[in-house]
Amino acid sequence: MTDGWSIVESGFDVETNRAYEGLFTLGSGYLHVRGSLEEHLLQAPQNQEYVRMPANVTAEVFPDNKAKWGTYVPGVFGRHPWLNSEMVNLPWFLGLAPYVNGGKLDLEVANVRDHRRELDLRAAVLRRSVTWDTAAGAILHVTYEWFVSAARKHLCVQRMVVRTDRDVTVSVASLLDTDVRTNGHEHFTKVGMSHTGDPERPDLQAVVTTDTGDTVTVFSRVLAPQATWELDAGSRAGTLTGAFDLLPGQSLVVEKRTAVTTSRDLAPVEPSALLDSLSDLTYDDLLAEHTAVWASRWDAADVVIEGDARSQLAMRCSIYHLLRCHVPDDPRVAIDAKGAAGEAYFGRYFWDTEMNLLPFFLYTHPDKARTLADFRIETLDGARQNARGYGYPGARYAWESDARGIESCASWQYRDHEIHVTADIAYALAHYARATVDPAYLDGPAAELLVETARYWMARLSWRKGEDHPSLLGVMGPDEYCPISHNNSYTNRLVAHALKLASEHGQHGGASDEERTAFAKAAAGLPILRDPARKLVLQCEDFELLAEPDFDRTWTDRSKGYANNVSQERLYRTKALKQADVLMLMMLFPQEFSDEEVAAAWEYYLPYTTHDSSLSPGVHAILAARRLGKTDEAWAFWQDSAFMDLDGGAEQGIHIAGCGNNWQVAVFGFAGMSSAMHTDTLTLKPHLPPAWERLAFPIIWRGTPVYVDIVKGKARITNRGTAAIDASVAGERKTVPAGETAEFETR
Amino acid sequence: MTDGWSIVESGFDVETNRAYEGLFTLGSGYLHVRGSLEEHLLQAPQNQEYVRMPANVTAEVFPDNKAKWGTYVPGVFGRHPWLNSEMVNLPWFLGLAPYVNGGKLDLEVANVRDHRRELDLRAAVLRRSVTWDTAAGAILHVTYEWFVSAARKHLCVQRMVVRTDRDVTVSVASLLDTDVRTNGHEHFTKVGMSHTGDPERPDLQAVVTTDTGDTVTVFSRVLAPQATWELDAGSRAGTLTGAFDLLPGQSLVVEKRTAVTTSRDLAPVEPSALLDSLSDLTYDDLLAEHTAVWASRWDAADVVIEGDARSQLAMRCSIYHLLRCHVPDDPRVAIDAKGAAGEAYFGRYFWDTEMNLLPFFLYTHPDKARTLADFRIETLDGARQNARGYGYPGARYAWESDARGIESCASWQYRDHEIHVTADIAYALAHYARATVDPAYLDGPAAELLVETARYWMARLSWRKGEDHPSLLGVMGPDEYCPISHNNSYTNRLVAHALKLASEHGQHGGASDEERTAFAKAAAGLPILRDPARKLVLQCEDFELLAEPDFDRTWTDRSKGYANNVSQERLYRTKALKQADVLMLMMLFPQEFSDEEVAAAWEYYLPYTTHDSSLSPGVHAILAARRLGKTDEAWAFWQDSAFMDLDGGAEQGIHIAGCGNNWQVAVFGFAGMSSAMHTDTLTLKPHLPPAWERLAFPIIWRGTPVYVDIVKGKARITNRGTAAIDASVAGERKTVPAGETAEFETR
Repeated sequence: MTDGWSIVESGFDVETNRAYEGLFTLGSGYLHVRGSLEEHLLQAPQNQEYVRMPANVTAEVFPDNKAKWGTYVPGVFGRHPWLNSEMVNLPWFLGLAPYVNGGKLDLEVANVRDHRRELDLRAAVLRRSVTWDTAAGAILHVTYEWFVSAARKHLCVQRMVVRTDRDVTVSVASLLDTDVRTNGHEHFTKVGMSHTGDPERPDLQAVVTTDTGDTVTVFSRVLAPQATWELDAGSRAGTLTGAFDLLPGQSLVVEKRTAVTTSRDLAPVEPSALLDSLSDLTYDDLLAEHTAVWASRWDAADVVIEGDARSQLAMRCSIYHLLRCHVPDDPRVAIDAKGAAGEAYFGRYFWDTEMNLLPFFLYTHPDKARTLADFRIETLDGARQNARGYGYPGARYAWESDARGIESCASWQYRDHEIHVTADIAYALAHYARATVDPAYLDGPAAELLVETARYWMARLSWRKGEDHPSLLGVMGPDEYCPISHNNSYTNRLVAHALKLASEHGQHGGASDEERTAFAKAAAGLPILRDPARKLVLQCEDFELLAEPDFDRTWTDRSKGYANNVSQERLYRTKALKQADVLMLMMLFPQEFSDEEVAAAWEYYLPYTTHDSSLSPGVHAILAARRLGKTDEAWAFWQDSAFMDLDGGAEQGIHIAGCGNNWQVAVFGFAGMSSAMHTDTLTLKPHLPPAWERLAFPIIWRGTPVYVDIVKGKARITNRGTAAIDASVAGERKTVPAGETAEFETR
Repeated sequence: MTDGWSIVESGFDVETNRAYEGLFTLGSGYLHVRGSLEEHLLQAPQNQEYVRMPANVTAEVFPDNKAKWGTYVPGVFGRHPWLNSEMVNLPWFLGLAPYVNGGKLDLEVANVRDHRRELDLRAAVLRRSVTWDTAAGAILHVTYEWFVSAARKHLCVQRMVVRTDRDVTVSVASLLDTDVRTNGHEHFTKVGMSHTGDPERPDLQAVVTTDTGDTVTVFSRVLAPQATWELDAGSRAGTLTGAFDLLPGQSLVVEKRTAVTTSRDLAPVEPSALLDSLSDLTYDDLLAEHTAVWASRWDAADVVIEGDARSQLAMRCSIYHLLRCHVPDDPRVAIDAKGAAGEAYFGRYFWDTEMNLLPFFLYTHPDKARTLADFRIETLDGARQNARGYGYPGARYAWESDARGIESCASWQYRDHEIHVTADIAYALAHYARATVDPAYLDGPAAELLVETARYWMARLSWRKGEDHPSLLGVMGPDEYCPISHNNSYTNRLVAHALKLASEHGQHGGASDEERTAFAKAAAGLPILRDPARKLVLQCEDFELLAEPDFDRTWTDRSKGYANNVSQERLYRTKALKQADVLMLMMLFPQEFSDEEVAAAWEYYLPYTTHDSSLSPGVHAILAARRLGKTDEAWAFWQDSAFMDLDGGAEQGIHIAGCGNNWQVAVFGFAGMSSAMHTDTLTLKPHLPPAWERLAFPIIWRGTPVYVDIVKGKARITNRGTAAIDASVAGERKTVPAGETAEFETR
């Protein structure tokens, strides 16, 4: 923890190695690589086969291993025999290991000191240094630095520098290894390793074909002083080893450039040609163009927090991973649940995309938000196929989508019942249209999606005997511990919203007038359940039939989630909530619920809420800060949300939706900004945590770039656009002319 | 359909081959073998590997194949990587094929006529004859006959007789094949094939080790005229072929004797030694001792139906399979859901054992009923392990039990929620104690089970806020389309019954007085939900929240079950019932529900009931006949229940619980016998279907063998015991002295 821009690992602990691998993931949006050790560890095989089963991933315990390599190109999905589509872990190319006298650098076995790694968030570069007392007597100082180029998305560049305190021969082994598995499963049906055969040209290539027929080529080239490279090649892996005589004071500099391409690429590239084309560019040239891209990304997105270095770092860590996951102009992929930094959620796309990730992009990089929104339109045929599979007309989005939109969730309770995702998508498209002032989006590209999903909803509704309104029965709301419930308020409201959108824009998507009338009527009829006496919005009809969870007795190990303490069957028969449900609804439609209702929901549901989902604390922090004025609670939930990955939770990948939530807590929660869904005026109600002296961030408000700068008692809005905007802060409304700054009192 | 004792297949249709394989399964209780063709079929590989997933087995579609070999020793379970324990399909030894000039008998390819198979139910022998116009010109007449010895449970004996119309050399190939799979999965970790090496001794042995460490030995010996046997042995299979010159008028008789033993056997036997010990016994000797056992079994169990040959055959078919599944004095196994005639339900033990199978044995073969009851006591430790796995004290029986009692169900909705099985077992033990007049059973062997399961129930109960009675929340009743419901009346009543038993007998099973008081109190408090206005017993609290199923619109293909027409999600959100639930409760506790309540339940639930479960029609037939006087409905449901296997439904095995139900429909339904659970007096209320002129059967009534003979308007009770009994028929009560027959008017 240093200047607010660096995440530092000091020393080495094998227990936290996988968490750092996930946390230190670098990527270009196209290509992502976990931050594994270049020389690897002994006895950490990456070809272990094991059986993962359909399950509550939150509570799943993963096989132990010291390390987990991960190389991912989102969109490259394989077919698992019982878990459906999953993003494939591709060949590992980071391998770059020093040897002295046959002794290999190994953090567990060798005599090493001063091991340090640093993720430079601003530059998106991982730096590493280690001092190695070799068995041969020489003390080697080794540094590594690498990045996945933001300027050339196929490219990863590594540089290794070795110095010594005495004459020594250092061997460097460059590894390219296809013998990897994805969630314990082999997805490659064909593997080809090749090498030029020229001992002076240290190039290695692997071509793998996945079980869905995609071909991925990984081409690595080592740049180093003149040497003879010895090839040790098996059918699955190849190692090139070169030997170098090194004197004290000299630096051995070895560079490794790798290009990864796939048969899915929109603009096909030949990887070796790509590397050839870079032959005139030095490492520093490539680094400079990479950091320039990142600098401009940060300009549009950095959130400054003063007075609380830890929060500052966590916020930047979240934004770093969000920016890393930028999908590079390819609407055929979205951002998966682990941010392409692990395999826990199979690289699939969830509602997180719309609800947790999209807002960040909408207000900082609207072009990227458009790509994310377009992904759902791109996969409308997949959603149609899902609907047909369930016997419905129209389109039904997948709870866990692959790149074609096909439902890939292997656990039926989520797949069958957590249908709100289809309505969440409609909400997100509307959010996109409003935030970017692009109403034509709903009448144009999105219209067919709105109509097709509305057709699904019309068939999915039930009209119960004796009732004059439709119902949605057998659904799972955001609270996944209430798996098959009736008239879940969240789902009903989102579906009503989606049906209303379809009634309003459906004529452009092929809906007849009769259909649109029916959409509107159903939208108006879907109930939101309320208990007026208690001013309580009910989660669902059957919630009150459940038992008290009795956490005191049943949640005995508080170091673990509730789901790790009790059986699923107990989760399902008690009022235990996994995450915000009614409160999530109130966050999305704040104007429809009175302050008393929000307060009553908070009082009622919070004691039942386990926050087993990483998505839960963020929602609570936002509502506590902006709606309920609960400063302490907002702070506590921020703490729960902000440090999940930083504090060792990134083993299986990044909680990327949590990253999106963290940004939302700062902007919607502590700055109190209203969503563009609900107002045309930039509206803020700052409630900074006591520890924060300043909160400042750029935002694009309905097309106008704005800089928001909040300190205790004051807020400044700078209009960086070309036209005046209206802004309201803490109830005071002003017009802010283009290029000017307006100052507001906040208390 | 002939004399009421034979099931005949005339001709051959590959489409029905697997159904006949299942229907023609022969077995000794210890060893079961599907009735596959001795020469097999071309292109019907038995080593196909495929992926079965956790699913609603009723709606599952199985991989296509022309044939499905099955060799099972119940209790030999393997470990499937994602489907848990399953009964292992063992090496196939039936192979015995004639060749002429290299041409093989094959029912699809060869020129065959007059193909006929006949299962002789009385003798438990399968006979087959076929006429084969060989390509070589000779017309061969081949007959097969085989049985799995009821007198020597390890032994299978086959006899093949070949005749010709001209001089011909006939080769006979005897196959022993270990290259088989169970549900597409390989369970053998070691396979050894061996042969004496002596060409004049046609013996073949296979020893396989399963993935749970059981060893199974299959030893086959061919008895034939002098010949030189040629061995064709691979690592997984061996074939011995002998050649015989045959003249018109001669018969070539080839016998094959196979012994199967396992490392689990209570009394270990060496298979080759077993065959050696039989060397003085002819085929006819072995057949005679086999049929003698079957004759005595039938004496105790045959149900005679006159006036309706089809019902007679169906009834005998059911009884045949029940008797075949006789567990031979080994309480470590029970009767699996497919009667060891297929793999659909993985060879596991369900509540069917207690509710559908046990009554037949209780009233015909009480010693076998005791073995079945003891199985649950034997596996109490497994049930304890299940309870611990869910975080409960005591013992929780598995929805799908393996031989150790361990929960093996791979679908969580059944495994987690269909908990009534644990209470069904207590009911069955009480039924055993009452029917066999063995009250000491509950105070003795069963007491600990009663206490341990009661302890589980006490922890599984919920006391909801504001209520003064316990509830059972989140359960699945017998209706599996209502997966997570609250206070299911069936489950509550059965659990209350189990708790009461534990309170009454628990002092012998380690329960303290306080515990027993608590058991009794909870038993008294568990609600049975009633709507007094409609005199309706409610299936569960949340049933009325469900939608109408709208079968007219959604059940479009009536040739298939409802679950094959709609998605599971629709099943779960509508009132569609899979099978009898409240009505099943009323069948088990008839005295607790008024006639109006039974009628109201019938009227209300029947229109919602899909009968997707084969268990459903039987329950409906019984209630219609004995309780509601609905003769037409009783007849229709009998038709639905009786012919399931006979009419082509045995592909994946026998509906053995349905067989048990068929017996119950005759005895409890049409003869109207009251269960010994509810009366000490043999009580009948005959309601014969119009087509039936006579219904007669032996029964053991509370220790006394009795013969019941019902004709139109009359019933005769013959007391075959040594003491007088009281009997009540159609309301008329008489004492029947030992050895005498009493006659009753029935209308």
